[in-house]
Amino acid sequence: MAADSNSEYTLDSVRKALERQEDTIIFNLIDRAKFPLNSHTYEQHYATIASILNFLFRNTEAIQAKAGRYKSPEENPFFPEYLPKSVVPDYPFSKILHPGAASVNINKSIWALYFQQLLPLLVASGDDGNYAQTAAADLSLLQAISRRIHYGKFVAEAKFRESPKDYEPLICAQDKEGLMKLLTSERVEEMVKKRVEKKAMVFGQSVSLERDDDDKTNYKVNPSLVYRLYDKWVIPLTKEVEVQYLLRRLD
Amino acid sequence: MAADSNSEYTLDSVRKALERQEDTIIFNLIDRAKFPLNSHTYEQHYATIASILNFLFRNTEAIQAKAGRYKSPEENPFFPEYLPKSVVPDYPFSKILHPGAASVNINKSIWALYFQQLLPLLVASGDDGNYAQTAAADLSLLQAISRRIHYGKFVAEAKFRESPKDYEPLICAQDKEGLMKLLTSERVEEMVKKRVEKKAMVFGQSVSLERDDDDKTNYKVNPSLVYRLYDKWVIPLTKEVEVQYLLRRLD
Repeated sequence: MAADSNSEYTLDSVRKALERQEDTIIFNLIDRAKFPLNSHTYEQHYATIASILNFLFRNTEAIQAKAGRYKSPEENPFFPEYLPKSVVPDYPFSKILHPGAASVNINKSIWALYFQQLLPLLVASGDDGNYAQTAAADLSLLQAISRRIHYGKFVAEAKFRESPKDYEPLICAQDKEGLMKLLTSERVEEMVKKRVEKKAMVFGQSVSLERDDDDKTNYKVNPSLVYRLYDKWVIPLTKEVEVQYLLRRLD
Repeated sequence: MAADSNSEYTLDSVRKALERQEDTIIFNLIDRAKFPLNSHTYEQHYATIASILNFLFRNTEAIQAKAGRYKSPEENPFFPEYLPKSVVPDYPFSKILHPGAASVNINKSIWALYFQQLLPLLVASGDDGNYAQTAAADLSLLQAISRRIHYGKFVAEAKFRESPKDYEPLICAQDKEGLMKLLTSERVEEMVKKRVEKKAMVFGQSVSLERDDDDKTNYKVNPSLVYRLYDKWVIPLTKEVEVQYLLRRLD
């Protein structure tokens, strides 16, 4: 969801935005799973460049940076050290976040878990030669996951504004554990995990024209993997962003 | 679907691949429709570059070309005149197509219809400042539509192999109308159009956890627009590719 200057970043509207982002993540999971692993994509020096993934990822990020992508407070680059300046005029994004938000970027953790843990579970083994397309699919999926996780900044801001009196003493004490406990709602988390699992079933089914003949068993991405993605990584890392943001909230 | 060297390009397998590509097109329609029109994306000289769209599109294509994308017989660039050479070693894609296939590229027509006709129907008016993301969404969607339409080369090859005796005299006579008539199956086309409309309903619904509480009316992309996209543009342009391919088939 866009940081429209008219939108209210209430906890409710922030959750609606997260819900919408789930669809994008699942679409991108399905589109990456179209390709097998294609391990040459990730090998150093398979081509006359470092690796196809790194070449494509860093250069695409640089182009998007020049086109203004990272001026949005919702976007966070994976390789900030390589980015050229935007050539696009400033847009009045609403300034809802504390300025400390700019220094919260956990994309290195997201990168590591994606390639080391998620990808091997997501794709079949094999090689179909479509390395550039594979790297582009990795990029889109990683951008969608990163946006979702860093949206934790907006979640934290909304929670803080709802009950500043509860958060302020913990922030003053820089009490990470206390903050983590205060911002955790197991009921909401369980609902999110069940919803993404259901979405994986709905979006990953084979749709046929005959009513009730849709194949609801042979999903394009395993729904339990999507549950696990949120359970083990997306939700914990979002909360990590929330805590990091809150620790800076009174600076 | 990848041009795996073991796969058979029968009419049946080609149609399965087209069916799978429908999902990708609809996912990308939904993801583009997340953003409003964002007309600054398309304006000349809004930024200190020709237009944000052109800058992002041409440079991203160039990076993907260098990473080997256009070595696949399923991929066709929009700006072939700007492409650097691939730096990736050759992959043994199956050589199923006649060499004349390489000269069939109708992306200029696809580009024109996309920006002049489809886009204004797909997105809401407005401006949320996310121009780079908008251009990236246009790129992914155009690539998916282009791949589907140029897959007509494989469709035509499969049809030709099924009944060469029917096609040969029309090809010798360079009879475009005769070829168009021979390769048209209104029954199949109607089925495809109804299926993509249904897929737009399934993938574009709001999924909620409560059974039977999914919102099946407020779709993220109008299903009748997806029907129309296939009816007016995707299917006719795929057949245009088929005819262009067949006219070269006996060269």
